[in-house]
Amino acid sequence: MFESANLDHRIDKAVYRREEPKLREALLHAQYDLKENGRFPVLILIAGVEGAGKGETVNLLHEWMDPRHIVTHAFSEPSDEERERPAQWRFWRALPPKGKVGIFFGAWHTAPIVQRVLGRIGEAEFTQQIAEIVRLEKMLTDEGVLLLKYWFHLSRPQQKKRLRSLEKDPETRWRVTEQEWEYFRLYKKFVRVCEPFLRRTSTGEAPWIVVPGADPRYRALSFGRHMLAAMRERLDEKPVKRLPDRNPPLLESDKLNVLRALDQQQPLEKPEYQKQLEKWQGRLNLAARDPRFRSMSVVCVFEGNDAAGKGGAIRRVTSALDARSYTNIPVAAPTEEERAQPYLWRFWRHLPRHGRFTFFDRSWYGRVLVERVEGFCSEADWMRAYGEINDFEGALLRHGTVVVKYWLAITKDEQFRRFKTREKTSFKRFKITDEDWRNRKRWDAYELVVCDMIDRTSTALAPWTLVEANNKYHARVKVLKTLCRAVEAALERIASPGKAKKGKK
Amino acid sequence: MFESANLDHRIDKAVYRREEPKLREALLHAQYDLKENGRFPVLILIAGVEGAGKGETVNLLHEWMDPRHIVTHAFSEPSDEERERPAQWRFWRALPPKGKVGIFFGAWHTAPIVQRVLGRIGEAEFTQQIAEIVRLEKMLTDEGVLLLKYWFHLSRPQQKKRLRSLEKDPETRWRVTEQEWEYFRLYKKFVRVCEPFLRRTSTGEAPWIVVPGADPRYRALSFGRHMLAAMRERLDEKPVKRLPDRNPPLLESDKLNVLRALDQQQPLEKPEYQKQLEKWQGRLNLAARDPRFRSMSVVCVFEGNDAAGKGGAIRRVTSALDARSYTNIPVAAPTEEERAQPYLWRFWRHLPRHGRFTFFDRSWYGRVLVERVEGFCSEADWMRAYGEINDFEGALLRHGTVVVKYWLAITKDEQFRRFKTREKTSFKRFKITDEDWRNRKRWDAYELVVCDMIDRTSTALAPWTLVEANNKYHARVKVLKTLCRAVEAALERIASPGKAKKGKK
Repeated sequence: MFESANLDHRIDKAVYRREEPKLREALLHAQYDLKENGRFPVLILIAGVEGAGKGETVNLLHEWMDPRHIVTHAFSEPSDEERERPAQWRFWRALPPKGKVGIFFGAWHTAPIVQRVLGRIGEAEFTQQIAEIVRLEKMLTDEGVLLLKYWFHLSRPQQKKRLRSLEKDPETRWRVTEQEWEYFRLYKKFVRVCEPFLRRTSTGEAPWIVVPGADPRYRALSFGRHMLAAMRERLDEKPVKRLPDRNPPLLESDKLNVLRALDQQQPLEKPEYQKQLEKWQGRLNLAARDPRFRSMSVVCVFEGNDAAGKGGAIRRVTSALDARSYTNIPVAAPTEEERAQPYLWRFWRHLPRHGRFTFFDRSWYGRVLVERVEGFCSEADWMRAYGEINDFEGALLRHGTVVVKYWLAITKDEQFRRFKTREKTSFKRFKITDEDWRNRKRWDAYELVVCDMIDRTSTALAPWTLVEANNKYHARVKVLKTLCRAVEAALERIASPGKAKKGKK
Repeated sequence: MFESANLDHRIDKAVYRREEPKLREALLHAQYDLKENGRFPVLILIAGVEGAGKGETVNLLHEWMDPRHIVTHAFSEPSDEERERPAQWRFWRALPPKGKVGIFFGAWHTAPIVQRVLGRIGEAEFTQQIAEIVRLEKMLTDEGVLLLKYWFHLSRPQQKKRLRSLEKDPETRWRVTEQEWEYFRLYKKFVRVCEPFLRRTSTGEAPWIVVPGADPRYRALSFGRHMLAAMRERLDEKPVKRLPDRNPPLLESDKLNVLRALDQQQPLEKPEYQKQLEKWQGRLNLAARDPRFRSMSVVCVFEGNDAAGKGGAIRRVTSALDARSYTNIPVAAPTEEERAQPYLWRFWRHLPRHGRFTFFDRSWYGRVLVERVEGFCSEADWMRAYGEINDFEGALLRHGTVVVKYWLAITKDEQFRRFKTREKTSFKRFKITDEDWRNRKRWDAYELVVCDMIDRTSTALAPWTLVEANNKYHARVKVLKTLCRAVEAALERIASPGKAKKGKK
């Protein structure tokens, strides 16, 4: 990867003075086109060797472009807020929205490289992290992000010269610490790790661009020109019709499916219900106050037919909990800010800290349910969403978050009865709209996509719980009991309150 | 993955009798459209549980469609021919060409699953193999293959019932051996491995389709209908203009690059050349006759400017070798058969067995050289090719094959002199065509793409060797010496002739 960059590239002052103003103007132009057109975000990853001019280049970019529309994030040690959530969370919350330029200084590539160089992870773990990065970046580019990855490079002699000259100048001496020389001594080790890393994370959609860092003028012009060309290419693209979908349809089902196979005749009556409710609410409350609970978190997803009783079930759960320990997120149409981001962004932002619950009343599964049925996204988009969702939940599970997912199912007849009751009862009338009746007409289509969803996203650690919800009492108790057992099992896995271990398998 | 398939799906005889003829006719129709239109191949992977009707389904397909245009391959134990080449080789040589339907019975997914269930590989190795499979399948679909992956499933009670009933019938008793019952006892273990495997190898482009296997009629109709729909969707697609390329250009270079940085003033003169030639040819010959050489193989790639002396260099190498031990593959325009396959196919087919050399006079790098410069493939295609080529060479290296790659470089002036000499010398005239002069006009463009290629495909185990070829003597000796040392180093890594170990890192 570094063959070309190891050469002593150079641009002289006269050329730079002539070229720089042209580049600046064109970049500013591109930035304003991006802002006006607003069709995609630009995400620039800045990485590479110490002393290769990463900081200088970002400063220059702020000088060249309108800094009000550039958002720069430098990722160093994670904050406590960040440590209590899955590793990717800090990057998700910093993503630039459509129309803006975001600069990430040391993003998801830093940790695997440094850990590998220092021998803290083995080759297998390194390979696994590379695969995760490739999937994350594919998801971002599939979602329309213009992802530009720059690696600033110095050869070993160049780096030595650079550190020496910084040391000599009293103005820059502070920048060369023992840490810099320590890394310099590891130069060869870094190259042995970085080189295959760059190659294996260079995909057709998001290749690494190696920028020779020794000569400031060469570095600035070549970085700036590349960035400009990449932005222009995308800005000047004429919107074309999408390629036809190449995905085969999923398997057609007969009339038998996991929903119809549910036994909706559940005998639970009120007196027994109240006893059960009390029992499980008590146990859940106890579990949530366990000292070990302070080093874990819970994400609960409620999906189900319209009028299946999601809200009621959630209330029976939350009434067992301290109000400060949970957040309830009703998911409706995305806000303007959310529409300017990849679809998972609006869920990442609500992930709980340790010791907390988040209840999602509808969720990211909208992508493979309503968006699929209504054609809000293309077949290619919802097909890739199964894998993206499994990756997302995988990140939660690896962090030690408990993930519980419910499908509350009622029969078509039962839904009809409930809709009618809602229409008749004045305080329930707000709950029933024309849209509910419209959705009902597509009952069979929804049934099919729910079954696909269950097949493709039930995992050993985050299975779907199908809840027979014609009997509300039964449904609420099953929801509480399932959640309670999942939390208790997770507590069991935490050895002792003091030594809570994160990231278990 | 198996929630839906675990249900007892069933289709009755009357329905089947009515539906089957319609399906057959439509499938035959689709097959003939495919043959006429010839734009893509269909590759069907058949996998799943013992006794779930995989064989029956494939037989049925042969009955339903025209068996002359279906190529079925069952992969069991690899042959010795296959064992002496990288693991993927057997699949590459069985790929269906455009216009045909290929059926793979137990393809690349079998080994990782079985090895994982039997505990022969750990989770890390399993994950790595999954990542490789995903990359292989992405490459195939990017190359236009319609890849359909069917998993035939039985629930545990269904499988038990099925094996019992096969045993009872004297006609089918032979099919149930101790092996089948052994696998049955491992049912839960298999599910624990297969389930995440199917999920993680289900991508947007090539999802697994789970076929419930218990009821023969349900199985046949649902498999057949899905396959028909998938083929029709692709056949009826209107060819549209490709999406615009979203890849940013690679970094522009100044006039300094790795080729121009070469020192072409090499002093080697004829007497010393002859001494050197003899020395290295002798050493290479000795290495090739080493008993350990019988458990390895060598792939040599020669690329370079027109008239740089590739042919002459290859001849100096091969004259040191036993004529039975090497093959020389001059790469020109692909044949009709080769054009009907993914571009790497024509190179896979020529990989050497153990104890052999293959010399490629031009190679798979044409994809990122001439095809890129001349626009024979799209930007997206050559951008993804770097990763595909690294994967391809990675497979060779993991198998223990030595990969040596040369770029023979001459200066523009030197090329002019050689072209002129060729025109003047009668026996050399066939070597110079109008195309050579045309290519020469694009000298700068070629220089740029060669540098990109070197940066992006030089790896620690398969680096590019840049050969200063203005002095032919120097070039030939450098080529021989590099190859000789690479072979000697590989022999060193093989412990002893008896216990040759494959697949070293």
